[in-house]
Amino acid sequence: MTRIRKIALEEHFMAPGFQTYSKGYLQHIDAVVMADLAKRLADFDDIRIGEMDRAGIDFTVLSQTGPGVQGETDRAAAVGRARENNDFLAAQVARHPTRFAGFAALPMHDPVTAANELERAVKQLGFKGALVNGHTQGKYYDDPAYDAFWERMQELDVPMYLHPTDAYAMPHVYAGHPEISGAAWGWGVETASHALRLLFSGVFDRFPRLKIILGHMGEGLPFQRWRFDSRFAVYSHGIRLAKKPSDYIGSNIVITTSGVCSPAALNGAIAEMGAEAVLFSVDYPYESTAIAADFIEQAPMDDATRSLVCHGNAERILKL
Amino acid sequence: MTRIRKIALEEHFMAPGFQTYSKGYLQHIDAVVMADLAKRLADFDDIRIGEMDRAGIDFTVLSQTGPGVQGETDRAAAVGRARENNDFLAAQVARHPTRFAGFAALPMHDPVTAANELERAVKQLGFKGALVNGHTQGKYYDDPAYDAFWERMQELDVPMYLHPTDAYAMPHVYAGHPEISGAAWGWGVETASHALRLLFSGVFDRFPRLKIILGHMGEGLPFQRWRFDSRFAVYSHGIRLAKKPSDYIGSNIVITTSGVCSPAALNGAIAEMGAEAVLFSVDYPYESTAIAADFIEQAPMDDATRSLVCHGNAERILKL
Repeated sequence: MTRIRKIALEEHFMAPGFQTYSKGYLQHIDAVVMADLAKRLADFDDIRIGEMDRAGIDFTVLSQTGPGVQGETDRAAAVGRARENNDFLAAQVARHPTRFAGFAALPMHDPVTAANELERAVKQLGFKGALVNGHTQGKYYDDPAYDAFWERMQELDVPMYLHPTDAYAMPHVYAGHPEISGAAWGWGVETASHALRLLFSGVFDRFPRLKIILGHMGEGLPFQRWRFDSRFAVYSHGIRLAKKPSDYIGSNIVITTSGVCSPAALNGAIAEMGAEAVLFSVDYPYESTAIAADFIEQAPMDDATRSLVCHGNAERILKL
Repeated sequence: MTRIRKIALEEHFMAPGFQTYSKGYLQHIDAVVMADLAKRLADFDDIRIGEMDRAGIDFTVLSQTGPGVQGETDRAAAVGRARENNDFLAAQVARHPTRFAGFAALPMHDPVTAANELERAVKQLGFKGALVNGHTQGKYYDDPAYDAFWERMQELDVPMYLHPTDAYAMPHVYAGHPEISGAAWGWGVETASHALRLLFSGVFDRFPRLKIILGHMGEGLPFQRWRFDSRFAVYSHGIRLAKKPSDYIGSNIVITTSGVCSPAALNGAIAEMGAEAVLFSVDYPYESTAIAADFIEQAPMDDATRSLVCHGNAERILKL
């Protein structure tokens, strides 16, 4: 069959020297599985491009695997590690510029430094935006100090992929349940909650052209849109927003299909928010490229919708 | 138009003397709105039945509004309050037996006492199951001590409606954001997480006929089913289940439409789990009965599906 053009946005690598940050994430994975993951995370050539070719993925935007720079406790070190990551990634992209682009790692420890590194990554390295692994040492980006960052991001007209991470402190309900607190559930809760902090703090009212990308079919947000409006109408806590909460989810907040290869969830998300709000992704190397590609090509959708989800939305939002 | 038969399952009342438990939930609601809610919560006659009649709701299973007995810190007092609530509710149901049934409040502080009260409520009062408001003072029901309770609930062949509540301790990500930690989002996270604790603890393997009902379109669980399987395959943490995680969501765990009147979310949930797993509800008096009824009558579905969702599933699961 002729495969449809596909662009993938949540595709990870491991830069040399960044392994220590990921220990908490990866320590529970079976050793044989982990050895394979490590090999694929470190590769930018035959393994990765071969897998893209077999699945008909034309173009991939690469990002450091989590938590990356967000896991660095030392602020000054974080600035250096972010630059180091971004320069390393730029060099890899330069070797395959028709297949790869980059999302910047950012030292969100300080809003202005992060904005400066984003500007450098976009203007000098040609990156398409940033992928940030959630909170930085417990700090969330609805803090008013981050308006300086968001203002610059809006000026640069690039999106932030807000990627999951561990909760800063373990919520009581996960205690004794590591199978719930991590990738299967807790990461999504953490990430969706962070996105809601941005929304209810009015970040999208102050910076209406901002785009936040959430993976994993939107981390649960799309299907609760009606309830956000209903409950916010009763429990506003004095907050005033320019629009209904649901209006931001699907416009300022868009989603990818990474890690949720379910036609029912995909079509539900499209029905909730429109075809312009849903973008294909894999979550390489943690998910199967082949399964994700087959899923997006075979899920019931009309051709126009499939084109938007597979590549059109990414081309528009990332200016590819 | 001829309205379809409808049964509603998450419909609340306030028994005399239970107001103090709900202060934390209701204190942020506007005073005029609260006065109306209080009037409707206390009524079992013209207001409630008039609203049911106008919306074509034939039958309603009533439950104490949250947190009810789960909010009682004293174990001995909780036993008395649960009996008091259930006897009060039985008397109200007896006045309108063709329109009302009851879900028991349970003193989950002690598993065997809770099982005994459930048995009394089902066998002596004719209740259809229980509605429990999440954890009891921070204790979740995957604790092995609760197997005695689940065993009895399975014997009695009645479902538990696991209703939202506040997190026991405030998760860091909600700090300073009461608009997120409550009904709009945090309650759903708390409830879905509790349901996942039951699932991954093997409660449904040990008691395979148990039915847990989750409101609010399943509190986010239905649309992450694919990811539960994918991530549990990698991060099992030594847990062994008889089935894939997704297999329990839609069978042991069924959902209601309370508080999410979105055709996209509804059809997505049905596509994920099948029409047998989705039940109509309103969340009276917190949501509009009229809007919920119009939503479920007008959402695009075939007649067989609509019959199951509106009444057939409730009749089967609650043996009505």
